Amino acid sequence: MEIEFLGTGAGSPGKFRNVTSTALRLLDERNSVWLFDVGEATQHQILRTTLKPRKIDKIFITHLHGDHIFGLPGLLSSRSFQGGNEPLTIYGPKGIRNFVEVSLRVSETKLSYKIHYQELSTDGMIFEDQKFRVYAQHLDHRIECFGYRIVEKDHPGELQVDQLRADQVPSGPIYGDLKAGKTVTLPDGRQINGQDYLGPAQPGRIVAILGDTRQTPNAERLVKDADVLVHESTFAKGESKLAHSYYHSTNIQAAELAKRMHVKMLLLNHISARYTGKMAVELQQQARDVFKNTRVVKDFDEVTVPFQKSPAQEAKS
Amino acid sequence: MEIEFLGTGAGSPGKFRNVTSTALRLLDERNSVWLFDVGEATQHQILRTTLKPRKIDKIFITHLHGDHIFGLPGLLSSRSFQGGNEPLTIYGPKGIRNFVEVSLRVSETKLSYKIHYQELSTDGMIFEDQKFRVYAQHLDHRIECFGYRIVEKDHPGELQVDQLRADQVPSGPIYGDLKAGKTVTLPDGRQINGQDYLGPAQPGRIVAILGDTRQTPNAERLVKDADVLVHESTFAKGESKLAHSYYHSTNIQAAELAKRMHVKMLLLNHISARYTGKMAVELQQQARDVFKNTRVVKDFDEVTVPFQKSPAQEAKS
Ligand SMILES: [Zn+2]
Ligand SMILES: [Zn+2]
Repeated sequence: MEIEFLGTGAGSPGKFRNVTSTALRLLDERNSVWLFDVGEATQHQILRTTLKPRKIDKIFITHLHGDHIFGLPGLLSSRSFQGGNEPLTIYGPKGIRNFVEVSLRVSETKLSYKIHYQELSTDGMIFEDQKFRVYAQHLDHRIECFGYRIVEKDHPGELQVDQLRADQVPSGPIYGDLKAGKTVTLPDGRQINGQDYLGPAQPGRIVAILGDTRQTPNAERLVKDADVLVHESTFAKGESKLAHSYYHSTNIQAAELAKRMHVKMLLLNHISARYTGKMAVELQQQARDVFKNTRVVKDFDEVTVPFQKSPAQEAKS
Repeated sequence: MEIEFLGTGAGSPGKFRNVTSTALRLLDERNSVWLFDVGEATQHQILRTTLKPRKIDKIFITHLHGDHIFGLPGLLSSRSFQGGNEPLTIYGPKGIRNFVEVSLRVSETKLSYKIHYQELSTDGMIFEDQKFRVYAQHLDHRIECFGYRIVEKDHPGELQVDQLRADQVPSGPIYGDLKAGKTVTLPDGRQINGQDYLGPAQPGRIVAILGDTRQTPNAERLVKDADVLVHESTFAKGESKLAHSYYHSTNIQAAELAKRMHVKMLLLNHISARYTGKMAVELQQQARDVFKNTRVVKDFDEVTVPFQKSPAQEAKS
């Protein structure tokens, strides 16, 4: 699980940062990639990475401002052209379906795959499978905007096969039940509980990717205990009034949120073209003074989402 | 008058060629720039040139395939963001207005300028001012597609002031009438004709920029005697059947058209990603064997549209 930043700028594309798009690479976990926002030329950025458009099976749109969606029709077309034929789901505010459908219809684009649309209205869980849950909540932007919380389910502990052998539990299909934590009856009449033969569970990871927003209590719910928080930083320290009136956040507000909600790593994106070179470093330093594990990301930065140590691992170390 | 190529590729953006957009720079002639097609990331390409989006006052769309229009919403937004407030006219097939309006409405983009739409249906002159005429004609593509012929009006000859003085014509407001080619009566009763005191007229230039097309008689009308013809070359020599079935042209067909219709310079664009490096050179050489003054253009190539020598200049040289 890695996050790859395809566009980290705000508003208009600049020479150094493209408009917003963030890829959550889940290749090991589910052999797919999820995209969060698709600013114009996201497909061009992808050309410079190892990402394959056909591996993208979910696209989450935070809000409908052009710098977050104008790359969608082109990316969808190229995914088809490059042999993608698995269905794809687009989550986002009401209106995203109309934009995509009109773009494809006017251009007479025939896709080789089906798009499922899930237009969001209420907050809550929007996706669940065996390994992940995704939650969406409204943020506070000039137009309807969502933040996303991606929760990996805990990895159950390994079955302690050596211990089972030592206890003379015969191998066979019951190992599957034991691994699932069930209680089974052995041929010799003993009842044993799988839970007693499982190593420590590995807690799943939590990633929160927020859209453009002012500070809002909903953001707290989305980011609580996240291993990685991707947060906008359109404004700098001392500009919180400006940020409020433009429905954005400062680097300091993002850092305070991360600290308050026990986030483990903060990645700042949606950086204005006003902050280049030394000023972007300054933006990062200001935030680090509040929350140490902060980084201002650039286009093409890749960040691994680390596993936290399980309680058992922590006890050992 | 120069042509600057912003995207010379076909279908999907590649590492070396972006999707189609061609700028006709008319800075000396009317302090503006006209764009022909706006593939995705055209605004990103513009960032790497000296072009100013606010100088673009006309956009001509050949057809509605995504590789020719998906950059339009982003370019229009950035033109506004960068201080453009003069109106802009978009010419193109029916449907272009719906695409732009839905894109701007869904993204709640408020432009600082007005867009005039001129959706084309019949062939003929679509624009005229004191210096230029623009004609559009249907081509033969899978969907409705237009080619454009831009005709610069002749520059009238210079008033021969030395000759007027030698003939003792007193200077004054009548010089204006003489320059306009009118006949005037002098205070001494002589009648003189301005035409007799004008140097040779400078013929205006003709540029033809075609969209994707099979060979069609309409193309002949558009390109006749053009100083520069920009023509697609999606396929190569020997692939005319393939070209026909995909509603495209080969380099040879473009060169034969240029030769037959007395074009002076042929610029081939819409080059498939199958033709890179040496193969693009081969594409050019094949065409040159038919029509010598041919060039396969690359992104960011700039070509000056030369004045032809006037008859008088030709007599002198
Ligand atoms: Zn934004
Ligand atoms: Zn095309």
